[in-house]
Amino acid sequence: MMLQSNITELDTFVANAVDGHKYLQKLSRHDRAELMYTIASHIEALGEELILTAQEETNLPQARLNGEKARTIHQWRLYADVTASGVLLDARIDNGEGKNDIRKYNVGLGPVVVFGASNFPFAFSTAGGDTASAIGAGCSVIYKEHSAHPRTSRIMAKAIYDALQAFGAPNSVFGYISGSSHEVGQTLVAHPNVKAVAFTGSYQGGMALFKIGANRPEPIPVFAEMGSLNPVIALPAYVIANKENFAKEYIASLTLGCGQFCTNPGLLFLVKNEDSEHLKQFLKEELAAVSVNHMLHAGIRKSYDAAIQLLNATKEATVVGQSSADSEFPSAIVYTVSAEDFVANKQLQEEVFGPCGIIVECDSINQMEETIATLGGQLTITFAATKDDVQANSSLIELVKDKCGRLLFNGMPTGVEVVYAMQHGGIFPSSTDSRFTSVGPDAMKRFLRPISFQNWPDDLLPVELQNANSTQIERIENNKRILP
Amino acid sequence: MMLQSNITELDTFVANAVDGHKYLQKLSRHDRAELMYTIASHIEALGEELILTAQEETNLPQARLNGEKARTIHQWRLYADVTASGVLLDARIDNGEGKNDIRKYNVGLGPVVVFGASNFPFAFSTAGGDTASAIGAGCSVIYKEHSAHPRTSRIMAKAIYDALQAFGAPNSVFGYISGSSHEVGQTLVAHPNVKAVAFTGSYQGGMALFKIGANRPEPIPVFAEMGSLNPVIALPAYVIANKENFAKEYIASLTLGCGQFCTNPGLLFLVKNEDSEHLKQFLKEELAAVSVNHMLHAGIRKSYDAAIQLLNATKEATVVGQSSADSEFPSAIVYTVSAEDFVANKQLQEEVFGPCGIIVECDSINQMEETIATLGGQLTITFAATKDDVQANSSLIELVKDKCGRLLFNGMPTGVEVVYAMQHGGIFPSSTDSRFTSVGPDAMKRFLRPISFQNWPDDLLPVELQNANSTQIERIENNKRILP
Repeated sequence: MMLQSNITELDTFVANAVDGHKYLQKLSRHDRAELMYTIASHIEALGEELILTAQEETNLPQARLNGEKARTIHQWRLYADVTASGVLLDARIDNGEGKNDIRKYNVGLGPVVVFGASNFPFAFSTAGGDTASAIGAGCSVIYKEHSAHPRTSRIMAKAIYDALQAFGAPNSVFGYISGSSHEVGQTLVAHPNVKAVAFTGSYQGGMALFKIGANRPEPIPVFAEMGSLNPVIALPAYVIANKENFAKEYIASLTLGCGQFCTNPGLLFLVKNEDSEHLKQFLKEELAAVSVNHMLHAGIRKSYDAAIQLLNATKEATVVGQSSADSEFPSAIVYTVSAEDFVANKQLQEEVFGPCGIIVECDSINQMEETIATLGGQLTITFAATKDDVQANSSLIELVKDKCGRLLFNGMPTGVEVVYAMQHGGIFPSSTDSRFTSVGPDAMKRFLRPISFQNWPDDLLPVELQNANSTQIERIENNKRILP
Repeated sequence: MMLQSNITELDTFVANAVDGHKYLQKLSRHDRAELMYTIASHIEALGEELILTAQEETNLPQARLNGEKARTIHQWRLYADVTASGVLLDARIDNGEGKNDIRKYNVGLGPVVVFGASNFPFAFSTAGGDTASAIGAGCSVIYKEHSAHPRTSRIMAKAIYDALQAFGAPNSVFGYISGSSHEVGQTLVAHPNVKAVAFTGSYQGGMALFKIGANRPEPIPVFAEMGSLNPVIALPAYVIANKENFAKEYIASLTLGCGQFCTNPGLLFLVKNEDSEHLKQFLKEELAAVSVNHMLHAGIRKSYDAAIQLLNATKEATVVGQSSADSEFPSAIVYTVSAEDFVANKQLQEEVFGPCGIIVECDSINQMEETIATLGGQLTITFAATKDDVQANSSLIELVKDKCGRLLFNGMPTGVEVVYAMQHGGIFPSSTDSRFTSVGPDAMKRFLRPISFQNWPDDLLPVELQNANSTQIERIENNKRILP
C-alpha cells in the first residue's frame, strides 16, 4: 500500500479509501475501538528502530521521542474508549405521542486526508491524533508523508498495516502516500471522493489547502492548525511577586523542544515599570544559562536564523538577552519592543518558529488592552496573574476570551494535554475553524455528521438507536438525557 | 434600528451587533432563555395584522400561516429550554491527580447574519429558526429582509424589538436591514466582524455567500440550506400492496404548500412493471382531483412555468398526469423518464421549485441502485418499502445513507419536525456543511465554539465550570458523564 507520489494513480488510491470507509462504517463501534487498541499495541511494540530513526530524522532527543510515542499510544486508546462509549454519536430520540418517531446519530463523513507535521513525527503524523480521530469517527485515512521524516513515517505505517492484518481489517482503511510533491497533496484535497482534510503546519500551507477544499465543486472541511503567537500577559501584581520564577518558567517554555511547538509563548506583554525591568534582567540571566537542542532540520534552522537576522536589523527591537549559538545549535533570544512599535510594524507580529520571544512593553494596562485588541486569533493566551489582577481587569479578560481557544491562568501554554476538556484549535488565523479541536476525543467531531431516521421499524435501525439500547450508550430521549 | 440598505452605514451597523454580542455573552444562560421566552410571547401576542399581511405578501393560506406562527413560537421556546438546560455547552472537566485542571464549554462565535427565506415568512425569516438558534447560542443577529415579504418581516422585527425592550436588552442584539440589495448582503458576509452566516434559499444564492465567507481574509462558516430533490424510492413489494394509498400520499406531499418546500418529493424511483403502471394510473387520478394554491409570488410562478415548459419540450419526459392550471394557479404535474435518460440528461436532475414530480423508471433494482449512485446529496431520502424490501436491498440502503441527512421509512419528507433528533442539513449540494442542522435545538451548534480554561481558580471560572455546578448542568468529568 506504499505509493510513490504518482498523480495518475490517485484515483485508484482514493477508490481504495472509499472501500476502507465502507468497511469501517459496517464495523460495530466496539470492533472499531478494538481495531484502534490493536493499532496502539502495535505502536507500543515498536522497538529502538523507531526512536533511533526519528532521532536521526528530526534531531529530537530520545526522552522527548519516548514521551511522544507514549502520547501517541494514549491518543489511540483514549479515542478508542470514547468511540466504544458512544458519547460522540450524540444519539437523540424523539417519539412523543402522535408525533413521528425520529432518531439521530453521527456517522463518519468519508475518506479523510491527513498531512503529517514536521514537529511531531509520532503524535501529529502517520499514526498521530488526526489519523486516530478520523478512524475513531469511522473514516478511512489517506496519509500524506512529511518530507522531514519519511523513514519514521514508514515504520509507523508498517505498524498500522500489521495491526490491520492482525485485526483482520483491509489495508484500504489506511492509505500511505510517500514523496514530497505538493501537487499530489493538492490533487488529493480536490478529489471528489475525499470528504475532509486535517493539516498541522504553516499558515501558507494550511490556507492553500483550505482554499482548495472550500472552492472545489463540493466544498469540504479542511481543518488546518496553523500556529500562533501564544501571548503571555503578565499583570503587575503578579510580576511584583513572582519575577524570578516567572523568568525561569517562561524561558523553559520558550526553549522547550527548541521552541518548535505551535503553543510556543512567542509574545510577552508587560506594563513597563521598575519590576518589569527586573524581570527582563532575570530573563537575560535565564537565557545566558539555557541550552537549546538542534532544530528539526536544516530548513527550519535556516528560516529561524533569517527571522532573527531580520529582527536584529529592526531598529524598534532591542535584544534583552540570548543564549550562545553556534553552527549546531540556534540561539534562544528575547527582544523587547514598545507597544506602539509592535502595532505599527506588522513584521513583529509574525510567528518565528523557534526559541524567540518578543516582549511588548506597554505604558499602562489600557495600552496593553488596546494592543491586544489588534492581535489576530490565537491557539492559547496565558495570564500570568494573581486573582486580584484578574478581578481588576475584567474587560481585558473578556477581550482575550474572544481571541483564543485555550485560556491559561499561570503556567505555560506548551504541553497540550490529550483530554476531553482540551481545546486545541483557536481563532483564525491559528486555525481555520474555531468550532473544532485537533487534540482530545472531541477531535473526532471534525469528521462526524448526523443522520436522522424517521419512522423506521425498530429492528431495522442501527443498534444504538433501537429501543432496547442493548449496547448501552447515553442518549437524549424526548429532551431528557438518559444514561445507560 | 430599521435601516434602509445603505452600504456606507454597514460599519456602524456591525459595530452595534458586536455590542449586542457582548451583551448576550454576559447574560447568564437562564437570562438568555428568559429573553427568548419573552420574544416568543411577543410573537404569540401578534394579532390578525401579522397573518393578513403575510397572506397578502406570500399567498399562503391562513391555516398554514397560523401553523407556521405556532411553529415559530415553539422554536423559540424549545431552543430556550435547551439553552437553559446547558446541554449544548458540552461542558467537560479534566483534573485528574497530578494533571493540569482543564475545563471547557461552548461560547457564541460572534455576530451572525441571517438571510430570510421566501417560503417560510415566519419560521425561516426575521424571527425564524436561524435567528432563534443564533440568539440561543449567545450570538447577536443581523437580519437581512427578504424582498418577498418586507411588511411581514417588519411586524416580526417590531415584536422582537418590543420584547428586547420589555426584557431590558439593548436593540443591538438584533439588527434589521431592509431592501433587496444583493450588494448589501454580500458586503455584510464579507465584514470582518461578522462571524457566521445562515441562509435558506437557492443553490446560486447560497453558494455565492458561501464563497464570500470562505474566501474573505478570515474565513467564516456560511451554513446554506439550498434545496434538494428528496427522492422517494418505492420498492416492489411495497408498491404491490400499497399503490392506491401511496399515490394519495405522494400527490398530497408533492402539492403541499404548492410544492414550495425544500423537502418536496421531486423524484420518485420505481421498478417498471405491471404494478408501477397501476401506480402511475392512480397518480394520474390523484393529480386530476387535486387543487393547488397560489404560488408565493409572481417570480416563483414564472420560474415554475418556465421549468414546466422546458420539461414539456424535453422528448425524454412523458406527462403522467397533471392538475388543471389557469392564470391564478399553477398546474401540479408528474412526468416519467427512463433511468438511462435521467442519468444522461442533467436538466432532469434540476430542482423544480413547485408541485412537479419526476418518476424515474428503472428496469431493475440494480439499475435503480446505479441511478441513485449518480445523484448529488439530498436533505431527505424516503423509502416506500416493506421490511422485506429493506432486508432484500441492504446495499441500496447503505448507498442511500451516504446521500442524505434524513432517511424516512414510508411517510413523506414534507413536514420537518422541530425536535432534537431532526437533521435538516443534508449532503452537498443540499447544504454547505452536512455536519450541522438548521432545524431542531442542535441548530445552535452552528454558532458555538469551545473555549478551554486551564488552571483557573474555581471562583474565577464561568459558573457552569465551577466545582459546585450550582446551575446544575450535565458535564463530562474525567471521562464520565455526570448528570446534575
